[in-house]
Amino acid sequence: MELNPSERIDMLYASNIKVIQSPEVFSFSLDAVLLANFARPPRKAKGKIVDLCAGNGAVALFLTDKTPAAITAVEIQPRLADMAQRSVQLNHLEGQVSVLPIAAQKVFDYISKDSVDTVTCNPPYFADLPQSRKNPNQYLAIARHEIAINLEEIVAISSGLLKTKGKLFLIQRPERFSELLELFPKYHLAVNEVRLVYPKAAKAANMVLIEAIKYGSKTGIKFLPPLTVYDQTGKYTQPIKEMLYGK
Amino acid sequence: MELNPSERIDMLYASNIKVIQSPEVFSFSLDAVLLANFARPPRKAKGKIVDLCAGNGAVALFLTDKTPAAITAVEIQPRLADMAQRSVQLNHLEGQVSVLPIAAQKVFDYISKDSVDTVTCNPPYFADLPQSRKNPNQYLAIARHEIAINLEEIVAISSGLLKTKGKLFLIQRPERFSELLELFPKYHLAVNEVRLVYPKAAKAANMVLIEAIKYGSKTGIKFLPPLTVYDQTGKYTQPIKEMLYGK
Repeated sequence: MELNPSERIDMLYASNIKVIQSPEVFSFSLDAVLLANFARPPRKAKGKIVDLCAGNGAVALFLTDKTPAAITAVEIQPRLADMAQRSVQLNHLEGQVSVLPIAAQKVFDYISKDSVDTVTCNPPYFADLPQSRKNPNQYLAIARHEIAINLEEIVAISSGLLKTKGKLFLIQRPERFSELLELFPKYHLAVNEVRLVYPKAAKAANMVLIEAIKYGSKTGIKFLPPLTVYDQTGKYTQPIKEMLYGK
Repeated sequence: MELNPSERIDMLYASNIKVIQSPEVFSFSLDAVLLANFARPPRKAKGKIVDLCAGNGAVALFLTDKTPAAITAVEIQPRLADMAQRSVQLNHLEGQVSVLPIAAQKVFDYISKDSVDTVTCNPPYFADLPQSRKNPNQYLAIARHEIAINLEEIVAISSGLLKTKGKLFLIQRPERFSELLELFPKYHLAVNEVRLVYPKAAKAANMVLIEAIKYGSKTGIKFLPPLTVYDQTGKYTQPIKEMLYGK
């Protein structure tokens, strides 16, 4: 495996997946681990999964530990898509994971509408407002700010991809939760389960994991048990340790 | 103090408030304590607070520990309103707490629109559907099911009462959270802070505490630290003990 300058290989021990990372371009964070852990992909080999805003492919790669279904990682930035593709090879997962180096907005040229069981997405969290301070590194800016895609586009594309009763698993900042709840009905998505992630037990939530179902029933949100990342001594809590290092 | 048959006096030790209770008619539950604890009433003596669906007045009474402002407890059931009034006397709080034995829908005959700083409400949680199994005891049925008032009426009346930037503090079941988020904009309310209450650390939330502000900015919800009621041994957690018994 050829590594470019600045690249290194990191391992997610819980699933024995190796991921090519680069601090100059993109490194997966705990968010990718949380999302892959939260998602409940189809268990059948015929299932279809699409990971949008795939970055270096971390979420798609981690999901292989949970399902034999085909996973397509969609990433607009060629250099990140290339890292993802090489990580797929590194893990010998060419039979299960494909990387599509395209803008998510073009996905329907490659994947049929209403054909996907599960969509996952760890999107850029921050709106691209004129006054927002963006990272001068364009790779990181696109991953963090809604420069190449915004939240409504992600919701619209996810819904377009999903079959009836197909599921979207999304991670976002709590500040954007109500925006999502406003967007979902417009695209026939209903929130089913939500899990809030708190950095510490005594702090406000800083992440929210959301499961939405296409043409799902609006019976009301179930808020799953809270997930706390660090204990009082600043160490990872047991559930996080298990996600990162296994039992 | 004259007690009717079936009545008893319970004490909230954290605030030294005595409350007349009756298992036949109405007893306050932990929810009332959680709501009073969550609410941030005005601190000025000139402030105005209204507690809707006041039951036996527990929330209104508990709030006196936090504020010198005038509190009006609105309760439609005469027997409960009478219990509330006697509890006010029992605590010598006639100077601060008034009981209005009326339907909340009639409140504007007594309190001016746009005049209140804070509204609190521990409403009936369950919709009054034809198929819903209701308590044969009418007192308890009205407290639990939306027989005398429904969620949209509560939101509409609360907003009508509040001044601009006035605050509504509400407790509800998480299943009805998205319904509230849909109702609020219609009545110029924006959710500011939310606190989820989990019965145990590893269980789904069973209560949600919500702060909404009239004509508040829609900057996104802040999810406060989670509140867990019981520890692994089935005992109250420290934060709950403090709410009930003081430090």
